[in-house]
Amino acid sequence: MSQFLKVRSAKQVMEILQRLEPLSEEAVRLEKACGRVLAVPVTASEPVPPFPRAIMDGFAVRAKDTFGASESLPALLEVAGEVVMGQPAVVSVTEGRAVAIPTGGMLPAGADAVIMVEYTSPLDETSIEVTRPVAPGENVLGAGDDMKEGEAVFPEGWRLRPQDLGVLAALGITSVRVHRQPRVAILSTGDEVVPASIQSLPPGKIRDINTYTLAAELEQAGALVGETLLVKDDPHELVSRCRRCLEDHDVLVLSGGSSVGMRDFTVRILEGFEDAELLAHGVAVRPGKPTILATVGGKLFWGLPGQPVSALMICRTFVVPSIRILQNHCKGLRGDGGQTCTARLIRKIPSASGRTDLFPVVLRPEGATLRAEPVFGKSAMISTLGQADGYIVIPEDAEGLDGDTEVTVHLFTSS
Amino acid sequence: MSQFLKVRSAKQVMEILQRLEPLSEEAVRLEKACGRVLAVPVTASEPVPPFPRAIMDGFAVRAKDTFGASESLPALLEVAGEVVMGQPAVVSVTEGRAVAIPTGGMLPAGADAVIMVEYTSPLDETSIEVTRPVAPGENVLGAGDDMKEGEAVFPEGWRLRPQDLGVLAALGITSVRVHRQPRVAILSTGDEVVPASIQSLPPGKIRDINTYTLAAELEQAGALVGETLLVKDDPHELVSRCRRCLEDHDVLVLSGGSSVGMRDFTVRILEGFEDAELLAHGVAVRPGKPTILATVGGKLFWGLPGQPVSALMICRTFVVPSIRILQNHCKGLRGDGGQTCTARLIRKIPSASGRTDLFPVVLRPEGATLRAEPVFGKSAMISTLGQADGYIVIPEDAEGLDGDTEVTVHLFTSS
Repeated sequence: MSQFLKVRSAKQVMEILQRLEPLSEEAVRLEKACGRVLAVPVTASEPVPPFPRAIMDGFAVRAKDTFGASESLPALLEVAGEVVMGQPAVVSVTEGRAVAIPTGGMLPAGADAVIMVEYTSPLDETSIEVTRPVAPGENVLGAGDDMKEGEAVFPEGWRLRPQDLGVLAALGITSVRVHRQPRVAILSTGDEVVPASIQSLPPGKIRDINTYTLAAELEQAGALVGETLLVKDDPHELVSRCRRCLEDHDVLVLSGGSSVGMRDFTVRILEGFEDAELLAHGVAVRPGKPTILATVGGKLFWGLPGQPVSALMICRTFVVPSIRILQNHCKGLRGDGGQTCTARLIRKIPSASGRTDLFPVVLRPEGATLRAEPVFGKSAMISTLGQADGYIVIPEDAEGLDGDTEVTVHLFTSS
Repeated sequence: MSQFLKVRSAKQVMEILQRLEPLSEEAVRLEKACGRVLAVPVTASEPVPPFPRAIMDGFAVRAKDTFGASESLPALLEVAGEVVMGQPAVVSVTEGRAVAIPTGGMLPAGADAVIMVEYTSPLDETSIEVTRPVAPGENVLGAGDDMKEGEAVFPEGWRLRPQDLGVLAALGITSVRVHRQPRVAILSTGDEVVPASIQSLPPGKIRDINTYTLAAELEQAGALVGETLLVKDDPHELVSRCRRCLEDHDVLVLSGGSSVGMRDFTVRILEGFEDAELLAHGVAVRPGKPTILATVGGKLFWGLPGQPVSALMICRTFVVPSIRILQNHCKGLRGDGGQTCTARLIRKIPSASGRTDLFPVVLRPEGATLRAEPVFGKSAMISTLGQADGYIVIPEDAEGLDGDTEVTVHLFTSS
C-alpha cells in the first residue's frame, strides 16, 4: 500500500472520483426509476404523438377554407361530424366542411388546422360561421412534433427526474436499464462515542451523531444505506468489521480516527487489507482536512473526520458526488443537484400581466456563469420539459421578462 | 356546493393552502425522521457538550501558567498525567502542571485551556516547554457551548434535514413527534388515455403519463403515494373511485377532465359529494389554468389539467406546497425547498488561499432579496449547522470573500 501522506485539493479529489468505474446495470420498473441513472441511451421508437392532435376545443378544418374570414365576413362551413375523444377520426374533412373536435382529439384526414370554438358560432344544426382565419398547423400538434421516431431522447448517464418518467411513459417504456445504487455501510468509531439512545451520559462520553447524519445525507443522495454501526476504537475490531462490511457493500464510510495525530487508526485499518490503495490522505478543504480516500479490492473506502460538522460537510462535498459517479451520473447540470440558480436570460419572454407564467429554460455555461435559453414549443409537448433544466416564474404583476436580465431558475432535480 | 367559477391568483391559492389544518401527529425513530416535520418544539434537556472538551491535541493547562511564554523564553510545565479518550479526566491541573489530552478528550479539573502540541516540546519524561501563551478557553469547547440546557433548538413546524438528526442525536433524542405524511391517491382519466405499458397504440389513444410524473414529484416532496389509477372518463365510475380513494388517503389528485369546456367532469364529480367545497375553479397561472382545488369531507381534492406539462407544473407549484403544509411545515426558508440561491454576504469572510473553505450561513430576507450572515462558532458545534440555512464555498484560489458581495448559497434541504 502507498504509505506517504497524500494531501489532495478538492479538484484533485473530484478528478480521482471521476475515474471510478460505475456499478453494474439492472432493470427497474418505471414507477421506481426516479433518481436513477440511465445505463443506456433512450431513443424514441415511435413518433409522439403518434397522430396529429387538436390542442384546443373547436373544429378541424382546412385552413384555406378560413382564409379571409372576419367578424364582418365570416366563412360558412358545414359540420360533417364530430371527433370522439380517444377514438379514430372517422369523418374526413373536405372542402367547405368542418368536424367538431375536443382538445386532445385525433385530427381527421383532410384537416390541417383547428379553429377555436370561440371564433365560431353555430348558424344552424349543421353549419357554423368562422370569424377568423387559421393558419395551417394552428392549434394542432402534428405526429412526431413532441418526439420524432429515432430521435435521441436521453443520453446514457442521465439521472431521471419526475418529468423524465413522463417522457419514457409516452414512449411506452415501462422498464429502464439503470446502474445499481451503491450499497453503503456507515461505521462510526471513537472510544468517547456511545449510542445516541443512552440517556445518562457517563463522564467523558458523547453520543453518536455521524451514523444518523451520514446515513440521511447519503440516502437522500440515492445510496442504499445498509449497515450503520458504532464500533469500538480498536484496530483489530475495526479491520474485522470493515472486512465484513466490504463483502456486501460497495462503499464503506468510516468516521472518526482519521486525524493525522496519535490515533491514525484509519490508515492502520487500511494496512490490514492487502488490496488497499490510498488515494488521498488529507484534503485541502476546511472543515474536513483529515479525510481519507482509498479503494479496497475495488470497493470505495472513505475515512471521514470524527467531528460531526466536518464529517457531514465532507460527505456532502465528496461522498455524495461519489455516490452519483458510481451510478455513472454524468449528464446532470451539476453533480450535487440543486433546485434554484441564477442565470442570464438570453431573450425576452413576453407574458400577460395578471397571470403567473412558468417558462421552461435550458441552461448553458457562459464563462463562469449560466445563460438561460427559453424552451419554445407547444405546451402540450412533454419533451419540452424533458429538455428543460428548469423554469422561470414570471410573476403576475410583470409583463414578461426582458432579454439580458438576471433570472432565478427553479431547477428540475430528482432528489 | 359553491357553484360559480372561482378563478384564483397564485397568491390566493397559496393563501387558501396556508389555512389547511395539519394532519395528526405520530412518533418516528430518529433514523427515519429526515424530511419529516416536527409537531412539537425541541428544547435542549442538557448541555452539549456535557463537559468541557479539547478541540485540539495537546496539553490541558491553566492559561495563566503560559502567559509570557515564547520561543526564546518558554514556560516549563510538569506533565502530571494523561486524559484517556472517552474516560473521566482523573488527574487535575494545578499550578505549573499540564495534562496530555487528545482532541475530544474531557478537560481535567483546574484546566481552562489547551495548548496545541505544536507549541510544546518535551524536555524530559515528565516535563514540557511551552513556546506560546494560550488564552483562557482557547482550544476548549466549554460545557453547553454547543447547546445550553433549556435552549430552544428547533421550533414546531421545522422540517428535519440530515444535520438536524445530528442535533437531536447529540441530545439523546432517538424518537421524534412529527406530523403524518399525507397519503396521496393519484387518478388519471381521459377516454384517450391507455396504460403506458400498451406497446401498440390504437388510433386516437395516447399513453398515461400523469400517474408516473405526479407520483414521482409527490414522493420526492414527502408524500406517501398510495393508489395510482387510470380511470375511465365516466362520471359514475370516477365518483365511485374517488369516493373509495378518499376513504384511506388524505389527498386526491385527479388529472384530466378539468378544462372549462364541454367535459367539465371534475366539477361534476365534486357535485357527487355532499360535503365538497370548491375553493378554486381555475388559477391565473400558465400553464395550468384549468386547475381545481376543493375539499371533500376535510380531505384535499386537486383537479389538475390532463395535459402532462400543465399537470406537472401545477403539481410542483401548488400540490407540493400543500403536501408540506399538511405536515405543518412552516419554518423552512421556502415552501418548495431549493438547493442553491443567491444572497448578499453581509460581512467579510477570511480564508487562506490554497484550500477550499465551506462556510455556514443564515439567510435573512432583505427587501425582495436575501442576505447571508456567516454563522461564527467553533467548528465542533453541530448546532452551527442546525442554525445554518446553507453554506458558501470559498474556492481554494480565493483569499476569502468581501462583505457586500453576491454569493451563491448551497442550501441545506432535506429532499
